Amino acid sequence: MIKAAMHAGTAFRRCTFDLFPRRLPTGRSYGVVAGTGRALEALKHFRFGPEEIEFLRDRGIADDMLAEWLADYKFSGNIRGYAEGELFFSGSPVAVVEGSFAEAVVLETLLLSIFNHDSAVASAASRMTLAAEGRPIIEMGGRRTHEWAAVAAARASWIAGFGPSSDLEAGRSWGIPVSGTAAHAFTMLFDSEEDAFKAQLEAMGEQTTLLVDTYDVDDAIRKAVELTEGRIGAIRLDSGDLSVEVRRLRKLLDSLGATKTRIIVTNDLDEYQIAALRGAPVDGFGVGTSVVTGSGHPTCGMVYKMVSRADSDDPDAVQHPVVKKSQNKGTIGGRKTVMRQIDQSGTATAEVIGVDVAPRTDSNDRLVMVDLVRNGEIVGEEPLQDARDRHARARAELPLAGQKISRAEQAIPTIFVTHEGEKTENIYLIGEPPANL
Amino acid sequence: MIKAAMHAGTAFRRCTFDLFPRRLPTGRSYGVVAGTGRALEALKHFRFGPEEIEFLRDRGIADDMLAEWLADYKFSGNIRGYAEGELFFSGSPVAVVEGSFAEAVVLETLLLSIFNHDSAVASAASRMTLAAEGRPIIEMGGRRTHEWAAVAAARASWIAGFGPSSDLEAGRSWGIPVSGTAAHAFTMLFDSEEDAFKAQLEAMGEQTTLLVDTYDVDDAIRKAVELTEGRIGAIRLDSGDLSVEVRRLRKLLDSLGATKTRIIVTNDLDEYQIAALRGAPVDGFGVGTSVVTGSGHPTCGMVYKMVSRADSDDPDAVQHPVVKKSQNKGTIGGRKTVMRQIDQSGTATAEVIGVDVAPRTDSNDRLVMVDLVRNGEIVGEEPLQDARDRHARARAELPLAGQKISRAEQAIPTIFVTHEGEKTENIYLIGEPPANL
Repeated sequence: MIKAAMHAGTAFRRCTFDLFPRRLPTGRSYGVVAGTGRALEALKHFRFGPEEIEFLRDRGIADDMLAEWLADYKFSGNIRGYAEGELFFSGSPVAVVEGSFAEAVVLETLLLSIFNHDSAVASAASRMTLAAEGRPIIEMGGRRTHEWAAVAAARASWIAGFGPSSDLEAGRSWGIPVSGTAAHAFTMLFDSEEDAFKAQLEAMGEQTTLLVDTYDVDDAIRKAVELTEGRIGAIRLDSGDLSVEVRRLRKLLDSLGATKTRIIVTNDLDEYQIAALRGAPVDGFGVGTSVVTGSGHPTCGMVYKMVSRADSDDPDAVQHPVVKKSQNKGTIGGRKTVMRQIDQSGTATAEVIGVDVAPRTDSNDRLVMVDLVRNGEIVGEEPLQDARDRHARARAELPLAGQKISRAEQAIPTIFVTHEGEKTENIYLIGEPPANL
Repeated sequence: MIKAAMHAGTAFRRCTFDLFPRRLPTGRSYGVVAGTGRALEALKHFRFGPEEIEFLRDRGIADDMLAEWLADYKFSGNIRGYAEGELFFSGSPVAVVEGSFAEAVVLETLLLSIFNHDSAVASAASRMTLAAEGRPIIEMGGRRTHEWAAVAAARASWIAGFGPSSDLEAGRSWGIPVSGTAAHAFTMLFDSEEDAFKAQLEAMGEQTTLLVDTYDVDDAIRKAVELTEGRIGAIRLDSGDLSVEVRRLRKLLDSLGATKTRIIVTNDLDEYQIAALRGAPVDGFGVGTSVVTGSGHPTCGMVYKMVSRADSDDPDAVQHPVVKKSQNKGTIGGRKTVMRQIDQSGTATAEVIGVDVAPRTDSNDRLVMVDLVRNGEIVGEEPLQDARDRHARARAELPLAGQKISRAEQAIPTIFVTHEGEKTENIYLIGEPPANL
């Protein structure tokens, strides 16, 4: 595309691309933006080195003109977008990239990959922390997904309220807390379960979590309590019918005097099973597969579409909206500004997206988009804790119906405002445009 | 685990770990092993550098003894496993790792991540190439998954018979063919669709594929044919009801004299939609989301379990089988040897897994496992083409019922043989152990 546009003289026309989800996955009431920080970090290092360029030349993909341009590539445009941890809804312009066609289009795969993956994980993770109602969830899905996706998934789930991750590299790269667990193999390595427990207690102290279901659960619990005189920090159960078992094991622990010992459960948990354990004496969860694979929705389906462009490559040329008409896959041209409408009680009521117009804000309403990159300079970096805090705040604004774990509609409507004025016929919901629009 | 085992004196006991799927995803008749080559490549570079070790010390995870051991880490054991591209079934020991507990257990996450991800993609991809019945499929899902998972997914889908990938880095890293496509944004960049087509034809030649559904499909096709005097290589349709549309467009192309122009379709295709287009005049497919996310099964659920160990750290000590008894998550201890039972017509009839015994092979039967690493030396590397060829051969052995795209049972039974002898009661199917076992 860039080569052809270069030869035709259009490659440096100023353009704007929106990165947005057409809709939420069926049954989900909201999504969670994650990946912003990773995208900014990746953008910093997004260059084409000699090896990459040689490959492109060898395969006949790049000619001299393109190769030279790639060698000098450094994004010089602007990116505005949702701050990380923020909620998104259908049509939310999560990132808006403005620059020459060439420099903006070459970022398409990078940005979509990061946002589609990280936001899918964060969206699933947020439903799990909602369901857990404050009880901690350890992220332990690294082994169920690509080795680098695992690191990003640990980061995304932490933004959405998870506790520590078992992925040590995630701790090293992103500073998030890490926490381990012993596997069944550790128990089986020793000549007896008791030897294994002793070794773990020796190395980790009495606050460690002992895995109790390698052989006989009740025996294991009795051993754990005996060895620590009732002070064992936690036991982990990784099999069986958890809701029945944990009640029984709580009673057993209490009867042995280990009333402070916590019960941690793992075993292919997802948000539905966590919700089903609401009344059970579970003190913490470990979640793997379901969170790193987005709990049924492993990608967000975000797309990257041109929404306006100039007729020349003058950086100051006015951009006019462009619109694609593909059946059921149309786009809405123009520059977007987003306002989360918040009522007097602090509850979100609508996602209002102004198209070439800023939505009017009232007292509690807040503008959602922030500057991430300005003239090529990255300005949107922030500590990961800020994204985590922002997510907790934004989710607390959701109406009660939007906090359902069961199949739900989008929590608040997405409303596009196409120009200022009193007329409500210029306001429509995604999927339900009035006939005159 | 390693720290505790070191202090207890058990860390260097010789152990064997099996990496295997407990079962196939519901409805799937077979799985495809992918990731072997990537795992061997990763193993080569799997070291702990000063930054990693410092992090582990800072967080109190590594003490002096563990830190020293990590600094010197290099896997010195053995890995046997399924060659890449091979089929797998429930219980198939895709990789068997033998070494000291410490050196084998530290590979768990790396190996599981690679095999779980790559095999999930290859398993889905193989169903798509089956459904396509020889018509080429381009992999274009890079933007729907983590940026590095994307590269691995392109590689895995190529093993399973896909055509070129749109992921250029996959071409550079793994030498697989790459192929591009123009986006709607390219068309919209120009003052008219005709200008865009002219620019693309100029840069890419008449054999290029023109995207025809940015504005009006019929107009676009007429333009494409006019501009090339009927010689346009292919058109791509990315929206609408494909099965109806392609028939109409084929007639339109033919009526305009463009009888050799191919029709390529994209638009959230999966194996079911490809199968539904069997009778339609489609010349090629582009598949994105569904292949990189495993078409409903984004991970294989492979696990890494200790199956035998020695009682000492003597490298020559005899290992004895170990068995975990967790409810519904038990393991089968012992050393595995696998034979694909093939009947006289060349059709696979069973996956026979010998436990501490080699299954007897008959004329057409073949042993499935190969040496991948011997005493730390990597011996299983091969050109990617070999894996692709192997997959085509192995899949051709499946019985017809195992080649169904619709919901199916496992194509052939998995049979564990526990010791030699005539008695069939020592043979059982996974999930259906006879009462006496």
